[in-house]
Amino acid sequence: MSLSQAVLNQDRLALSRLLTRVENDSEEGRAALNELFPHTGKAHLIGVTGAPGTGKSTLVNQLALHYRKAEKRVAIVAVDPSSPFTGGAVLGDRVRMRDLYGDKGVFIRSMASRGSLGGLAQTTAAVVQVFDAAGFDVILIETVGAGQAEVDVARLAHTTLVVEAPGLGDDIQAIKAGILEIADVLVINKADRPGVENTERALRGMLELAHPTRRVFQHHGQRMVVDAPPKAEEQQPIWVPEIKRVTAKDGIGIAELGETIARHVAFLRAGGEWAARERAQLQATFDALVQEKLFSQFLAKLSPEGYDALISKIVARERSPWEALEEVIQ
Amino acid sequence: MSLSQAVLNQDRLALSRLLTRVENDSEEGRAALNELFPHTGKAHLIGVTGAPGTGKSTLVNQLALHYRKAEKRVAIVAVDPSSPFTGGAVLGDRVRMRDLYGDKGVFIRSMASRGSLGGLAQTTAAVVQVFDAAGFDVILIETVGAGQAEVDVARLAHTTLVVEAPGLGDDIQAIKAGILEIADVLVINKADRPGVENTERALRGMLELAHPTRRVFQHHGQRMVVDAPPKAEEQQPIWVPEIKRVTAKDGIGIAELGETIARHVAFLRAGGEWAARERAQLQATFDALVQEKLFSQFLAKLSPEGYDALISKIVARERSPWEALEEVIQ
Repeated sequence: MSLSQAVLNQDRLALSRLLTRVENDSEEGRAALNELFPHTGKAHLIGVTGAPGTGKSTLVNQLALHYRKAEKRVAIVAVDPSSPFTGGAVLGDRVRMRDLYGDKGVFIRSMASRGSLGGLAQTTAAVVQVFDAAGFDVILIETVGAGQAEVDVARLAHTTLVVEAPGLGDDIQAIKAGILEIADVLVINKADRPGVENTERALRGMLELAHPTRRVFQHHGQRMVVDAPPKAEEQQPIWVPEIKRVTAKDGIGIAELGETIARHVAFLRAGGEWAARERAQLQATFDALVQEKLFSQFLAKLSPEGYDALISKIVARERSPWEALEEVIQ
Repeated sequence: MSLSQAVLNQDRLALSRLLTRVENDSEEGRAALNELFPHTGKAHLIGVTGAPGTGKSTLVNQLALHYRKAEKRVAIVAVDPSSPFTGGAVLGDRVRMRDLYGDKGVFIRSMASRGSLGGLAQTTAAVVQVFDAAGFDVILIETVGAGQAEVDVARLAHTTLVVEAPGLGDDIQAIKAGILEIADVLVINKADRPGVENTERALRGMLELAHPTRRVFQHHGQRMVVDAPPKAEEQQPIWVPEIKRVTAKDGIGIAELGETIARHVAFLRAGGEWAARERAQLQATFDALVQEKLFSQFLAKLSPEGYDALISKIVARERSPWEALEEVIQ
């Protein structure tokens, strides 16, 4: 039986082997991705990102338990762009192991950055495709940090949670400005800590900056949205990021967060956004394959000596990179 | 007079205009980069990276003052991959303005992430080339965070400082594992704070993990390096990252840090590493130009309708991305 067939049969050992081959971008991994591709497109991909210290791993763990209660199969992909470790469960594994170890409906995979970031996003996309084909209903993609890696991974996900926590300092909140734009749900974890009101106020202020056509008020638990006059092309409903407080270590607020996520899925499906995100994702995968192929064809045509000689001319300032480009590309 | 000629004449207004054009990747910006290219390759590029709260901006400010005392012209490029703001001096600008405002020998530019990260690294490289051609002797490239952006920017720099500070928590130190590998100098800022011993001990432990062939001891201020038996190809001297304590807000330790940086430059020049880094950087610039050109040629050959139809087949799972690639690339 082929590796991909074994994965479709939910063989965990085969799944683990295939993931390693996909991460290493081996021939066999690519062939299997090709075979699995028709079986993809069913899973709900949830991105979870936030700064260190916000308790992302605990939250992801609790969300996995939440979906397990509904008998959904759950995969966790923990992406750490700054870690040199890949394979197995490294990130927050102890916390996870306690509640999830031995559960056949859960599969945890840690990934790290090897090579370029484009490479990491592409590899994560491929790993997610394998889980999708293998019949996992929910795929939680966890990223650490607040950089471009998170934005790239968010492009993969249908629903993106950005996690905050009280008392991490103004500096950490400031770095979030760009990350906020990718948030579908803002989760304030460790909501039992002092300062939670300040964190929520700060996030609400930043949300208003990021979504200037909407003003959202929270008034005695009642959510009020006031529209600026919409432009003609903005008539369809838009999703205003919701702010949810949870205390993940005690499981508090997780069910409510699950409801919010379900509401977001319904919104995506109703408005055609689900299909649009999937198309954009597949297009990015295809574009990356084309670019890689074109460049390897280019390098094959130019001899290694010819390429080195050209770079040497650039280093010697005899050609600018743009002049060198003119020289080799017609 | 052309914009690039005005930049070579150190016209600040022209410089500011050209930077905007380069950031927007305009035709005129590209043409000017082409004209300026023969004048590049003289500046010393220093990357400064670290987590939020480590006081990077203050440190960069102090280093700028340090080099100004030696009459060197200093450019500061502040790269914030998570910020939506570009242009002008946004990042830590108040601190900088106080000491550096009005000094014609200093130019500060803030950049943010627009488009892909590859794009950000490429744009930063182009901005640095402009400063280099304009005769700035030292270019300080400051990045926020701990992700791939920092690693990419570090590839630009001749010397990379990674900044830490006591009391930021274990979590933030843990995320540094990957970042440590790019450090030429580890700077412990805010060294007047409690916990500085712990921070230094933690960094030293991580250094030993990252550089397992060397063991470095600090004994009564004496630096001792014990070699594991070197392999044949490792006979040339290697640079062991140094750990320096500073209190940037009071200017303490800055002169000593400047000496360490000067020692690193001497090391790079003596061993041929300076030239190797420059070549790798120019090669990356050239490769990115080639890839971009090849892909735009590909899109031009395939009609927009043909491209959309192909993506639609992938979305419908009638073709895998790999099969679609076979179809369009011979």
